[in-house]
Amino acid sequence: MEVLNLNDKFSLFQEYWTPKIIGQLNGQDVKLAKLMGEFVWHNHKEEDELFFIVKGTLTIEFRDKKVKLKEGEMLIIPKGIDHKPVAINEVWVLLFEPSTIKHTGEVKDKLTKQRFDTI
Amino acid sequence: MEVLNLNDKFSLFQEYWTPKIIGQLNGQDVKLAKLMGEFVWHNHKEEDELFFIVKGTLTIEFRDKKVKLKEGEMLIIPKGIDHKPVAINEVWVLLFEPSTIKHTGEVKDKLTKQRFDTI
Repeated sequence: MEVLNLNDKFSLFQEYWTPKIIGQLNGQDVKLAKLMGEFVWHNHKEEDELFFIVKGTLTIEFRDKKVKLKEGEMLIIPKGIDHKPVAINEVWVLLFEPSTIKHTGEVKDKLTKQRFDTI
Repeated sequence: MEVLNLNDKFSLFQEYWTPKIIGQLNGQDVKLAKLMGEFVWHNHKEEDELFFIVKGTLTIEFRDKKVKLKEGEMLIIPKGIDHKPVAINEVWVLLFEPSTIKHTGEVKDKLTKQRFDTI
């Protein structure tokens, strides 16, 4: 059992849109990511996904609306829902999602990561 | 999809040792709880459990050690491991755990809650 200090873990990487696994439980991953700029439209066919904002402000675009998330706020995106995260300034997020999840769902993009490192 | 603001959600209740569900995904609950004093020794036979400290300092006692968690830190307790949370001052925690979990495992105590409200 390791005490996971979020600030310490965030200090270990700087790449954007590259989630890092910091813990696993019950078939789920706890991941951290730094975001800046626009991501790609995608959905996760079988997985609900939780975004928790640790630092900054993140907009998540949906087909019919935009949702703005501030530090200390979270949003659960149900499976199958198209979404596109947009970070005007750097944002630090914690993700909680099944270990089976693909980074950009069925979409292939230059931003797509095939695997997630553990830090 | 509701934006879940942790401070707003914590302002909705004051009872200690009474986790409230704020969201569910992939068969897991996201719960908030306020803790003060000593809880009861217990374990969860089938469920790993994540504690994330939103405010304050929590000690989690294990049979062979004590772990101190500060704001911004998390700990994943694997299933089957006896543990007892102790909060000298008020602590606010976020819990990630399967929806099947029992509050105090197989232990029955005056602190045991049979069900969890959603807020």
